[in-house]
Amino acid sequence: MSETSQTALAVKGLRTIVDNPGLLWLDLDDPMSHVLDDLAASYGFHELAIEDCRHHVQLAKLDYYDGYSFILINSTHYTEKPCEVRVREIDAFLGQNYIITVHEGPSRAIDEIQNHLTSNATHVTRPDEVLHAIIDIVVDRYLPTLDHIGDTIDDVEDALLISPEVTHLQTLFELKRGLLQFRRAVASQRELLNMLVRDDTPFIQQDMRIYFRDVYDHVVRAMDMVETYRDLLTGGLDIYLTQMANRTNDIVKGLTILATIMLPLTLVTGYFGMNFEYIPLLKEPNGIWYTTGVLLFITISMLAFFKHKKWL
Amino acid sequence: MSETSQTALAVKGLRTIVDNPGLLWLDLDDPMSHVLDDLAASYGFHELAIEDCRHHVQLAKLDYYDGYSFILINSTHYTEKPCEVRVREIDAFLGQNYIITVHEGPSRAIDEIQNHLTSNATHVTRPDEVLHAIIDIVVDRYLPTLDHIGDTIDDVEDALLISPEVTHLQTLFELKRGLLQFRRAVASQRELLNMLVRDDTPFIQQDMRIYFRDVYDHVVRAMDMVETYRDLLTGGLDIYLTQMANRTNDIVKGLTILATIMLPLTLVTGYFGMNFEYIPLLKEPNGIWYTTGVLLFITISMLAFFKHKKWL
Amino acid sequence: MSETSQTALAVKGLRTIVDNPGLLWLDLDDPMSHVLDDLAASYGFHELAIEDCRHHVQLAKLDYYDGYSFILINSTHYTEKPCEVRVREIDAFLGQNYIITVHEGPSRAIDEIQNHLTSNATHVTRPDEVLHAIIDIVVDRYLPTLDHIGDTIDDVEDALLISPEVTHLQTLFELKRGLLQFRRAVASQRELLNMLVRDDTPFIQQDMRIYFRDVYDHVVRAMDMVETYRDLLTGGLDIYLTQMANRTNDIVKGLTILATIMLPLTLVTGYFGMNFEYIPLLKEPNGIWYTTGVLLFITISMLAFFKHKKWL
Amino acid sequence: MSETSQTALAVKGLRTIVDNPGLLWLDLDDPMSHVLDDLAASYGFHELAIEDCRHHVQLAKLDYYDGYSFILINSTHYTEKPCEVRVREIDAFLGQNYIITVHEGPSRAIDEIQNHLTSNATHVTRPDEVLHAIIDIVVDRYLPTLDHIGDTIDDVEDALLISPEVTHLQTLFELKRGLLQFRRAVASQRELLNMLVRDDTPFIQQDMRIYFRDVYDHVVRAMDMVETYRDLLTGGLDIYLTQMANRTNDIVKGLTILATIMLPLTLVTGYFGMNFEYIPLLKEPNGIWYTTGVLLFITISMLAFFKHKKWL
Amino acid sequence: MSETSQTALAVKGLRTIVDNPGLLWLDLDDPMSHVLDDLAASYGFHELAIEDCRHHVQLAKLDYYDGYSFILINSTHYTEKPCEVRVREIDAFLGQNYIITVHEGPSRAIDEIQNHLTSNATHVTRPDEVLHAIIDIVVDRYLPTLDHIGDTIDDVEDALLISPEVTHLQTLFELKRGLLQFRRAVASQRELLNMLVRDDTPFIQQDMRIYFRDVYDHVVRAMDMVETYRDLLTGGLDIYLTQMANRTNDIVKGLTILATIMLPLTLVTGYFGMNFEYIPLLKEPNGIWYTTGVLLFITISMLAFFKHKKWL
Repeated sequence: MSETSQTALAVKGLRTIVDNPGLLWLDLDDPMSHVLDDLAASYGFHELAIEDCRHHVQLAKLDYYDGYSFILINSTHYTEKPCEVRVREIDAFLGQNYIITVHEGPSRAIDEIQNHLTSNATHVTRPDEVLHAIIDIVVDRYLPTLDHIGDTIDDVEDALLISPEVTHLQTLFELKRGLLQFRRAVASQRELLNMLVRDDTPFIQQDMRIYFRDVYDHVVRAMDMVETYRDLLTGGLDIYLTQMANRTNDIVKGLTILATIMLPLTLVTGYFGMNFEYIPLLKEPNGIWYTTGVLLFITISMLAFFKHKKWL
Repeated sequence: MSETSQTALAVKGLRTIVDNPGLLWLDLDDPMSHVLDDLAASYGFHELAIEDCRHHVQLAKLDYYDGYSFILINSTHYTEKPCEVRVREIDAFLGQNYIITVHEGPSRAIDEIQNHLTSNATHVTRPDEVLHAIIDIVVDRYLPTLDHIGDTIDDVEDALLISPEVTHLQTLFELKRGLLQFRRAVASQRELLNMLVRDDTPFIQQDMRIYFRDVYDHVVRAMDMVETYRDLLTGGLDIYLTQMANRTNDIVKGLTILATIMLPLTLVTGYFGMNFEYIPLLKEPNGIWYTTGVLLFITISMLAFFKHKKWL
Repeated sequence: MSETSQTALAVKGLRTIVDNPGLLWLDLDDPMSHVLDDLAASYGFHELAIEDCRHHVQLAKLDYYDGYSFILINSTHYTEKPCEVRVREIDAFLGQNYIITVHEGPSRAIDEIQNHLTSNATHVTRPDEVLHAIIDIVVDRYLPTLDHIGDTIDDVEDALLISPEVTHLQTLFELKRGLLQFRRAVASQRELLNMLVRDDTPFIQQDMRIYFRDVYDHVVRAMDMVETYRDLLTGGLDIYLTQMANRTNDIVKGLTILATIMLPLTLVTGYFGMNFEYIPLLKEPNGIWYTTGVLLFITISMLAFFKHKKWL
Repeated sequence: MSETSQTALAVKGLRTIVDNPGLLWLDLDDPMSHVLDDLAASYGFHELAIEDCRHHVQLAKLDYYDGYSFILINSTHYTEKPCEVRVREIDAFLGQNYIITVHEGPSRAIDEIQNHLTSNATHVTRPDEVLHAIIDIVVDRYLPTLDHIGDTIDDVEDALLISPEVTHLQTLFELKRGLLQFRRAVASQRELLNMLVRDDTPFIQQDMRIYFRDVYDHVVRAMDMVETYRDLLTGGLDIYLTQMANRTNDIVKGLTILATIMLPLTLVTGYFGMNFEYIPLLKEPNGIWYTTGVLLFITISMLAFFKHKKWL
Repeated sequence: MSETSQTALAVKGLRTIVDNPGLLWLDLDDPMSHVLDDLAASYGFHELAIEDCRHHVQLAKLDYYDGYSFILINSTHYTEKPCEVRVREIDAFLGQNYIITVHEGPSRAIDEIQNHLTSNATHVTRPDEVLHAIIDIVVDRYLPTLDHIGDTIDDVEDALLISPEVTHLQTLFELKRGLLQFRRAVASQRELLNMLVRDDTPFIQQDMRIYFRDVYDHVVRAMDMVETYRDLLTGGLDIYLTQMANRTNDIVKGLTILATIMLPLTLVTGYFGMNFEYIPLLKEPNGIWYTTGVLLFITISMLAFFKHKKWL
């Protein structure tokens, strides 16, 4: 492809990030734009790959075509309140000496790499290095997300052991949904990296394998943590349920203590409230005091009994 | 097979959708009809394949025979109230230059393709292209179905967090059953596509593999969503159970609050209702007001106590 | 083996079902009989295979020996009340031109095939055709059994959603046990058929493979339905538990409503039952009516309150 | 190894069970004894194998060394009250023409084989036959153990459906632990047998494979039953929980019935216990009977109402 | 690498544990130190391996590089109160005739080996022997940790069957988290050992394989126990929940017994407390005693009834 046609493509939404001999990196932030059609025509991209760019967010994958590979990467974005994991998609066409990235709206990962390039913090000379840089940044963002989720789970579990609230329950279910979405993205990314590491992937040179393997290790670790957190979330729900059972228990216990004290007292007052002509003690001047004493005695002995049974 | 015999077959229920050199597409909408026997005789179809067409709906599969392949495709139909997924079956005999599709009653998928052909929206020249078109349309219908199910789950979960109703429970169980049926159909379809993609399937040309792989990706994604939804459904049931526990808790709490206020008040009235000759305050003109004051004090202090314990 | 010795074997319990050149089918309905020892001696069957015939019902399997194969088939028998799946065993020795079937007591499957042969509905010329006929009939009986179980689960779930009874619970657990037994038999049968389809099984000719594959498909489908039903059974238990929780809730709610109405009324009557010299209203001629009015007002406003809270 | 050194080894704890040309079977019942060191030195056993003999009970395994194989077999011992499965270990060194078995204390399996040999019930001429005899006896003991466990589960489930007791719960958890221990032993034994059947195991001759395969089938069946029983145990716990829910329901129901009858009656007596100057009926001679009638009417109609609602 | 440069490296944090021809073992206890950079430069270690040393604790793994292997080992440290499993990391660079171990802070495992070397309890001559010694010591520590956890589970389960306390619940959840962490470390260690045993791992000589296989067996056993304990923990939670249900049951039962006795008694006193002009028994001198007798009779017969129903 000649310099001219490249310039021709440098239209709205299309950036040329790197343009060296051996590496041309084009970036397009609007998959719906006709620029993508032009690119497809120039480079001979398959209609299915173009469709994948334009459809809703899909799972990470790697498809081989004649003369290029199509790589779909999932980036994840975590928001804390409410806990939600949104998954986005970065598409990359990887050729012998070019890489074309497509994404909807600005991509933090690609902007970050561009900044690194500008400040000479990173240096890329081949398309597979660019691909690695993108995937590396995307995967590096998993860990803080997972740490955040882990911390939230810990906080909720600790809070649940003190007092179970419906809001905690809600947080647990939000986290569960979030982890499910996260897991889908990470699982497909793992498959993608597995292919990049193992297969004789075209356009990935041998010496980059070790770097992709490193990213693969991080993804495996992230996946592992996701499973652990899912287990912990189930545990959190168990805590909630057992704590609710505890609470019901305590309330019913309180009711029972009250009834056990009050009902006998009420019976005594009812007894002396009957209208019999003769009831013992009624005519005695101190009868009321004797009775009051009995009432107090019942109350105190009941309380002592519950104290003894450790209900109080 | 000569032109004549083809015309002879064009009887009740049998349509010739495409009849070009290189592609004959016959469609039969009644597997029980004797036409199928005639076709079997003309083309030499195996009795087992014919049986599979005629029996109850079965799981998707791909059988290789001499000179043709037999493909059983599952299409799914979703109805919302009650949530139900019905699975239907489209059978296809795929030969070198013909495809014969068989289904019970009209098939929306095949009608749709015919419309596309009529309106020149699609163009097919080979039997494997027809097969791809059918499977593609069938699989494309998974996603809206799943989105519907996902939305229903979200709605039910949100409703459950506000107030748990038995009807929600019923919807959850309907969805569960629906997903189980859906999953069976999708799982077997995935196996079918896996064979179409990987094997050296006869009558599928090399350049169609990439298209079948694309459909395969969609099925994998659908399967993945089914699993996610099953997880969410279990979560929905957990929400229901915990909300029911919450509610019982609240009711028992209400009962306990009431009893804790009422029983002491009743004891006081019982105390002054006893028929002792002498009970303090009884003879005093303001005794009733003092007592009423005590009753109000008990009530208010109890309410304050529960307010303090955040039960109110 | 000569004709003579075959006749000699035609003793008690041993039937010669088919005796053509190329196919001798002997059937023995008593594995304990010494006839089996005689057969073992004549045909050189291994002691382990003979032991397998004589022991308790075992799981389906296929063992290769020199000059013959030993095949153990599981047939299933379903009784509805109580739901029970009994598993029985048909053993077959499959040689080059003979098949010997052994089973305890009469076997419905084998009697059915004999009837078909007599009425010319079936036609067998080779040992592997006999084997296929037996397994086919045995497997064909799975589907009605599963349909029965499925219908029972549906009935119980519907009944549970209306009113949970302990008898439903019992049916669920019977079904669960039945499915576990059924699953074991079907799973081992699937393995058996897998071997018959894939391996270069001796004494199974190439053209029979396609028929065994067809049976295999049916077994896979049955297995799939078993898993679905197990899921549904778990769901049934969940329905029971949630319905019980609902019911407890309703009862406690009823108690709370009653107490909430009755306790305040009792307090009012207790108030005017106190023996103070002066209590307002007591001396008024209409005092009782005012009080009665208050009691009615409390009752009605409480009922209205619960109506408003949708507890009634 | 010469005859002399063998005799020299025949010291405390070491028995020579068989000493024929082609088979020497030594048995040692104290792995800690220095005799084992002497054996190791004479036969050249690896220190790791000796360590495995001496350490705590381990999982079954098969290790190949130069000139011999080391086989670790797990035997299981079941005690019924409390339900417990103890796992023991028999170690075997299998060489070309010798087998040396090591175990702590007397082994019922080995004593039984020795008795059979003495009474000529069994006949062994090769080391692999001895190995088969030991594993066969050990595995044969699985089935009665499992039948016992199965019967206990059935008994407990039946008892639970009649009345749930904490002791049943305890038995369920004992069984669960026992099955877990049993499963570990059986699973590793299965792996061991799998190796004996499939691999080109040294010192196991071809014609013994079929016998080991037979034992393997038994172990697979045992494993299968263990899984089924685990499922049933979980079911047992579910029965317990649902029955407890039922019982709480019944108790709360009883309380509600009582309160629903008593509270209105108490209200009536409270009404006529008020001290108003004028209350209807009070002055009438038959007032008390009218009132008593009302009380009875309330009681009876309430009972009828509960009868109608099938609560009684 | 010359003697001189080795001495030059012997700076802060770097120890030369063994320095023989054929084996140089360097140990560094501060991965952040610049010494590691110097080592990396001298030996040509890859930047990714150095990064793995310096980052947070990671999962065990084995990476092959040109001229050396990088091995990451997880050691586990168990604290009892609260039950916690901390995972630490020992990194090893394994070359032809050297091994360099890196860890943060002092490592008990490496100190122990050094002590053994000093006291001649162990003898190492090759790098792979050092690696084995480290992994062996690390894995040997699993068993006491697991035994501790197993004992704690047993204690908690026994305590739960006597009386369920929230602290037990807390211990169960701590154990669950601890086991999850432990399992992650052990699982990755198992993969690591699997590679050391099976692959043609460079720098591991053939005769060490058997020793690594032995360690592998121990790790498999540990993994197996972890799974068993996870099952038991779930069982513990089930015990807690069922015991809570039991307890609620008992409390509600107590309340019901009390109410069943008290409410009828209160009704009787209310009956005779009504102000009718004529109520039977009121004017009789012994009326109060008759009534008291009735009250006692009700109490006693109720108690007898509950005794009969085994509620007391």
